[in-house]
Amino acid sequence: MSYTVQQIADALGAEAAGDTSLTILRAAEPAMAGPDDLALAMSPKYAEDLGQARAAMLWDGADWQAMGLRAAIFAPRPRRAMAGLTAMMDPGQGFAPGIHPSAVIDPTAELGEGVSVGPLAVVSAGARIGAGSVIGPHCFVGVNAVLGRDGFLREMVSIGARVRIGDRFIAQPGARIGSDGFSFVTPEVSAVENARKTMGDTGDARPQAWVRIHSLGGVEIGDDVEVGANSCIDNGTIRATQIGDGCKFDNLVHVGHNVRIGRDCLFAGQTGISGSVDIGNHVVLGGQCGVADNIFIGDGVVAAGGTKILSNVPAGRVMMGYPAVRMDQHTEIYKAQRRLPRLMRDLDALKKAVFKSGGSE
Amino acid sequence: MSYTVQQIADALGAEAAGDTSLTILRAAEPAMAGPDDLALAMSPKYAEDLGQARAAMLWDGADWQAMGLRAAIFAPRPRRAMAGLTAMMDPGQGFAPGIHPSAVIDPTAELGEGVSVGPLAVVSAGARIGAGSVIGPHCFVGVNAVLGRDGFLREMVSIGARVRIGDRFIAQPGARIGSDGFSFVTPEVSAVENARKTMGDTGDARPQAWVRIHSLGGVEIGDDVEVGANSCIDNGTIRATQIGDGCKFDNLVHVGHNVRIGRDCLFAGQTGISGSVDIGNHVVLGGQCGVADNIFIGDGVVAAGGTKILSNVPAGRVMMGYPAVRMDQHTEIYKAQRRLPRLMRDLDALKKAVFKSGGSE
Amino acid sequence: MSYTVQQIADALGAEAAGDTSLTILRAAEPAMAGPDDLALAMSPKYAEDLGQARAAMLWDGADWQAMGLRAAIFAPRPRRAMAGLTAMMDPGQGFAPGIHPSAVIDPTAELGEGVSVGPLAVVSAGARIGAGSVIGPHCFVGVNAVLGRDGFLREMVSIGARVRIGDRFIAQPGARIGSDGFSFVTPEVSAVENARKTMGDTGDARPQAWVRIHSLGGVEIGDDVEVGANSCIDNGTIRATQIGDGCKFDNLVHVGHNVRIGRDCLFAGQTGISGSVDIGNHVVLGGQCGVADNIFIGDGVVAAGGTKILSNVPAGRVMMGYPAVRMDQHTEIYKAQRRLPRLMRDLDALKKAVFKSGGSE
Repeated sequence: MSYTVQQIADALGAEAAGDTSLTILRAAEPAMAGPDDLALAMSPKYAEDLGQARAAMLWDGADWQAMGLRAAIFAPRPRRAMAGLTAMMDPGQGFAPGIHPSAVIDPTAELGEGVSVGPLAVVSAGARIGAGSVIGPHCFVGVNAVLGRDGFLREMVSIGARVRIGDRFIAQPGARIGSDGFSFVTPEVSAVENARKTMGDTGDARPQAWVRIHSLGGVEIGDDVEVGANSCIDNGTIRATQIGDGCKFDNLVHVGHNVRIGRDCLFAGQTGISGSVDIGNHVVLGGQCGVADNIFIGDGVVAAGGTKILSNVPAGRVMMGYPAVRMDQHTEIYKAQRRLPRLMRDLDALKKAVFKSGGSE
Repeated sequence: MSYTVQQIADALGAEAAGDTSLTILRAAEPAMAGPDDLALAMSPKYAEDLGQARAAMLWDGADWQAMGLRAAIFAPRPRRAMAGLTAMMDPGQGFAPGIHPSAVIDPTAELGEGVSVGPLAVVSAGARIGAGSVIGPHCFVGVNAVLGRDGFLREMVSIGARVRIGDRFIAQPGARIGSDGFSFVTPEVSAVENARKTMGDTGDARPQAWVRIHSLGGVEIGDDVEVGANSCIDNGTIRATQIGDGCKFDNLVHVGHNVRIGRDCLFAGQTGISGSVDIGNHVVLGGQCGVADNIFIGDGVVAAGGTKILSNVPAGRVMMGYPAVRMDQHTEIYKAQRRLPRLMRDLDALKKAVFKSGGSE
Repeated sequence: MSYTVQQIADALGAEAAGDTSLTILRAAEPAMAGPDDLALAMSPKYAEDLGQARAAMLWDGADWQAMGLRAAIFAPRPRRAMAGLTAMMDPGQGFAPGIHPSAVIDPTAELGEGVSVGPLAVVSAGARIGAGSVIGPHCFVGVNAVLGRDGFLREMVSIGARVRIGDRFIAQPGARIGSDGFSFVTPEVSAVENARKTMGDTGDARPQAWVRIHSLGGVEIGDDVEVGANSCIDNGTIRATQIGDGCKFDNLVHVGHNVRIGRDCLFAGQTGISGSVDIGNHVVLGGQCGVADNIFIGDGVVAAGGTKILSNVPAGRVMMGYPAVRMDQHTEIYKAQRRLPRLMRDLDALKKAVFKSGGSE
């Protein structure tokens, strides 16, 4: 596909200058840009080497002519412009339209208009796939599961029985929706129950085998949700696990049973949410965050990568550390920690001075 | 399916009261319960709103008549009752019985009585599947692998060559049993070997490429084990990696090569066990725990979520932190850490007082 | 397969002694060794019980005759010898050669000489598979993807469109190459952007929905790379995510978009690399390490398990902790932390002595 500089600027709602009829074939990092590429140089540091580019996307107010360019597009908010540009130029996965003959589709499944099903995919009895959705190669859709309109499942995604998913869902390869919750109980009080109650003492509980609590609830996912590669979302025990509209989860994320998540939350790679956690709207968790079971996290909470949240967090807090504290408090503690070895030496000197001097004991 | 209140109580071995012939269609959270639901209100806080429920499961001694119910079941240990109730009411995944015509089953594989194999599953040469087991859609069972009786593999589970698994095994979607161990060596001593020996100095090792140590051992899993979605259990190097009876692993758990795990252990989501670790019986590890290679963990050890165990842990210990210490010690350290910034200020004041006052130096 | 002691020694370039014509069927742990096994006892502690072994691999200089053996091989670097021995004796997964009739191969895909494709695998349009490569059961190779010679894909591996992989690639079950990057932006400045800038203050950003930045770049992987079970490597945004020759990744590892990794790096289980990280050569990260986005890690850096690297690390450093510091510094801080509760008590005593004694205020 090719675009003129003007067409790209129009699609982004951005200003363009110079010969805006110039044809662009693809976007490129500045130094690697060829004559048919749009060099992406949205900050001065990227503008030192524009390769062979004749056109570039630049920061607001950049002197494009001095850079030897023939045309330019201006991006006041660079990453926002990247979103528009990459959506426009995405070549996609090249999945073929239509139903591949090797797919196994139960006759009672309902497929909306324009649905495509890739090779060796399975759509089970009673499943309903909304118009325009793409079921990728090797995907599995379980009994009575519902996927809304214009969904896109990459290869080897699995969706369990009775899961309900809204419109424009995106799942990366190997995402698992509707695995059973991890919920076990011992016949009598267990060592771990005692340890949690006493914060450290397992008491005299006898060793016992685990009895399974089955998952009767499914998973309910809103509109515009994306789930990363090999991420897992568990079924609820009695009611469904709930994911609000607009949530985005990265790769290898784990969401336990009964979790409720509001809208527009963003969880980075390998983050894990234990069972029965309640999470508000617009919560952002960095990579490898963990949240303990049965707590709540208020609206707008942000946690840095690696944060382990072990107790309730009020709305709007920015958290860090293990166990998580406010980020400013974490910074203070952390600085003090790095001074700890010196502090030990200072304290020893003080003890010597005070207690051996006869001045105070 | 429907049940009378009496049938449910009998199945759970629980007491019932009121009109125990009342028909129940499903279980529900109290506030969402309809007239045909059994409201699950096993503690007073859940009993404030029982929705439209006519029957409920209640805590021992609850005044069910005052709540306007027509019948009640009493659960002295609520989660134990949940196990029984959910097992009874689980609608399952709806996998069809029998061998799906699209499955690829080697003629030398042995399938026990009543085994079902889902669409597009593969069962390889010499594999043996015990009576009553369910091989879900898109599953893979490798050459000469053995799965016991009454196993249940959800979709896209893979079991490598020569893996041996006992009875009543459950695997969630995407579980990997029998991936190769992660074991590499450099021809000469490497920087990382030096760093481990000296606790921080890589010495003068020259950069080298990694040579692979292959996995000749497989995986041996006992009876009544469950493995979560997208979890991975690696083959051993010379002998098999071993998982004892009754172990339960959550999603995205990693168990490295040569690990030996006793019976009835419980590992929560995203926990990782490095190679050659020895773990006793009834060990419980919270979410995102990590265990360093070549150490042992005694019977009954419990670790809180996020704990990183870097050295041997004797039986019965409750652990927390990174590096892991006893939970009571962790709590003490943690409280002191939060006081650290103030302590720094106190110490400065003391130094000023002592060393500038002339009183002691 | 069987080998003489002499054949094994020759293959390893090792010295042998005794009746080197003795036939060996397999390797075994010493105590479990039978008469046809080669007992692996490369350190004196493993030599106490050699089972029924007649031959053993021993440490340099071991007195094999005193152990009652009939033959011995000497391994001056035991793990190096293990690499050779296990490569020699690996029975493999038993995947059948040739193209399985159930595989779905696009007529425009190019398969080199001797390529095998397992049951129910998919090879898409324009894909190119190098000579001698094995595409395992249920694998997926996307449109225009390239895999070099002598690759080996275990079951259920997926490779996205346009991914390019070198020779001798190994992928464990469920590995995902070429999932889309996790990259989102809000139309206006977001709470998380503010929090990152101020280290803790979300400012007055209004809640917004996330807009997707698509991945136009793919993944480029060098020669001799291995990727573990259920690990994920994301596509780059504009250019490809790059993995150098000889890198080895364990299970459940996450590599984000735009990451560049040099040669011969080793990442243990569940390690996560955020987007746009630059990593040098011969970097070794222990299990569950995390690396924050947009930083660099120099050549030869080593990080202990569980380390969270939040800022640039110069070449050659050995790191530990969260946030990561030099390992020796971490050890010092850690020791001081364990003394913290006692330090608190000492400080209280000092304060009492100094400020109540009248000696200094």
